[in-house]
Amino acid sequence: MSLLLAIEGWDLQEWRDRFRRVAPDLAAVVQTEDYDPGRIRYACAWNAPQGLLGRLENLEILFSLGAGVDHLLRQANLPDVPIVRVVDPSLTERMAEWVVLQVLLHHRRQLDYLQQQRARLWREHSHPMARDVSVGIMGLGELGTRAAQALQGIGYDVAGWSRSPKSLQGVECHHGEGGLGAFLARTDILVSLLPLTPDTEGLVDLELLKGLRRDNRLGGAYFVNAGRGRVQVEADIMQALRDGTIAGASLDVFETEPLPGDSPLWSDPRLVITPHVAAESDPEDIAAYVVRQIRRHQAGEPLQNLVDLERGY
Amino acid sequence: MSLLLAIEGWDLQEWRDRFRRVAPDLAAVVQTEDYDPGRIRYACAWNAPQGLLGRLENLEILFSLGAGVDHLLRQANLPDVPIVRVVDPSLTERMAEWVVLQVLLHHRRQLDYLQQQRARLWREHSHPMARDVSVGIMGLGELGTRAAQALQGIGYDVAGWSRSPKSLQGVECHHGEGGLGAFLARTDILVSLLPLTPDTEGLVDLELLKGLRRDNRLGGAYFVNAGRGRVQVEADIMQALRDGTIAGASLDVFETEPLPGDSPLWSDPRLVITPHVAAESDPEDIAAYVVRQIRRHQAGEPLQNLVDLERGY
Repeated sequence: MSLLLAIEGWDLQEWRDRFRRVAPDLAAVVQTEDYDPGRIRYACAWNAPQGLLGRLENLEILFSLGAGVDHLLRQANLPDVPIVRVVDPSLTERMAEWVVLQVLLHHRRQLDYLQQQRARLWREHSHPMARDVSVGIMGLGELGTRAAQALQGIGYDVAGWSRSPKSLQGVECHHGEGGLGAFLARTDILVSLLPLTPDTEGLVDLELLKGLRRDNRLGGAYFVNAGRGRVQVEADIMQALRDGTIAGASLDVFETEPLPGDSPLWSDPRLVITPHVAAESDPEDIAAYVVRQIRRHQAGEPLQNLVDLERGY
Repeated sequence: MSLLLAIEGWDLQEWRDRFRRVAPDLAAVVQTEDYDPGRIRYACAWNAPQGLLGRLENLEILFSLGAGVDHLLRQANLPDVPIVRVVDPSLTERMAEWVVLQVLLHHRRQLDYLQQQRARLWREHSHPMARDVSVGIMGLGELGTRAAQALQGIGYDVAGWSRSPKSLQGVECHHGEGGLGAFLARTDILVSLLPLTPDTEGLVDLELLKGLRRDNRLGGAYFVNAGRGRVQVEADIMQALRDGTIAGASLDVFETEPLPGDSPLWSDPRLVITPHVAAESDPEDIAAYVVRQIRRHQAGEPLQNLVDLERGY
């Protein structure tokens, strides 16, 4: 026995079977089985039960099964071992699909057309061309970089903002607190792909949204979040819709997930709500990635995509 | 006086003023004014009144103000002069935006999520990655070529079909009646950008739709039409939705426009109906294009984008 799956919210048996198929020698076990914690050398965590990871004395690598690692930051007594996050090309591609869909949907007023359709109403609206629409991406890691590229392929004028300076082809890059104002002031459609860290928690509030450009040809400013829900202040998003600070939003992530049934977000016709599906990973790809990293480790090669817990990603 | 605007359905005064601004020497007039038909050397037509164009004895060039020229084919006594169609890069870009939006919308089950949202329902669906979704484009002119490229940028597996053989980078190209079956059999989402000609009228009927691949991971096959409405048989689209031949469609064009209020298309929740807005041109760009062609003609240079009425585009 050596690989433990410490997962909540996903199907444990399926995950165990998946790992047993691709790497029988790792003898995968799940948290609900009997196992000897001292024999676990690798653990894959996703919302792991509190306290469980701290008991793994001989752990060598901890894997985060999602791109975000905020679920690990909430753990007490994390073992002091390298943490590797899954960087799954399929996740990156799927995220870009969702972001492009939501940006186009607001830009091309698809929600208005769907509403008109229900009223059997034939009425044209004008839309600026993509090259006259500025999309601003917060978070320029793997996900933000690919989303920027996909949006540029449609013709959008793309800018980016990140904690530390970055440089992306054809993207006007801003960074840090000092760069935020200028970034927002040139952005019509704001896309957050930020990780959840102490710095980003609650960052997208009413004040930040007020900093956006409001282009009349677009009907106003828009917010799109496929990063982490607690980066947004949902009461402020509702307020921003009420007072015209934003004209609409697409949210895949929420302060509390699943989004509670009594949230006012559900019923605003200017909002698109999706149930954290922007970038579901292919489980087979995740398992293959984890096994690949374990093989590298076993061969004495350096691990990839190590997490810096201080930085938060 | 020398430029006549023979237009129905658009604002005549606005068009006249636009041409007078960019080319005062052309002394633009509109069909509702008094003018001497013998002094008209250039005419811009969009659904021109019957009989009007035939009276222009000294016409040198006839411009079609849209990408399609089927509105001219319905004219009696067309003067025997070169016909130039507007090829507007902004139209091409806007069309690609709309096509990518509609393909993503069906692929990512956005209509289902919007319906769930109204029911405050948090339920995930799985979606294949774009690379596992085959989009087939009928019509590989300017519009189809750009749409193919934009779809490839998102990651889709793109194929194309055209009347005569074409070759596009990374696109599996089929052509002619003989190539239609193989093209359909590998297509999950069918996109029509075909012009309306005697060959294409009614082409997309139930039998053609039955030839599509029906991928379970996508929930079935889809049809997207931003070309011309009379290429589709709307009764067959409704039948195809009823019997599962297709799982959904996005239509920007219709057999009759505006789409009549009693059409069953309006109310099917698997359909997206937009009021012929996929690729509205920028009127300023159209006027500039027409003036540019007139200047070429005046300088003795050959005209561009000449229409072959036999072929129909």
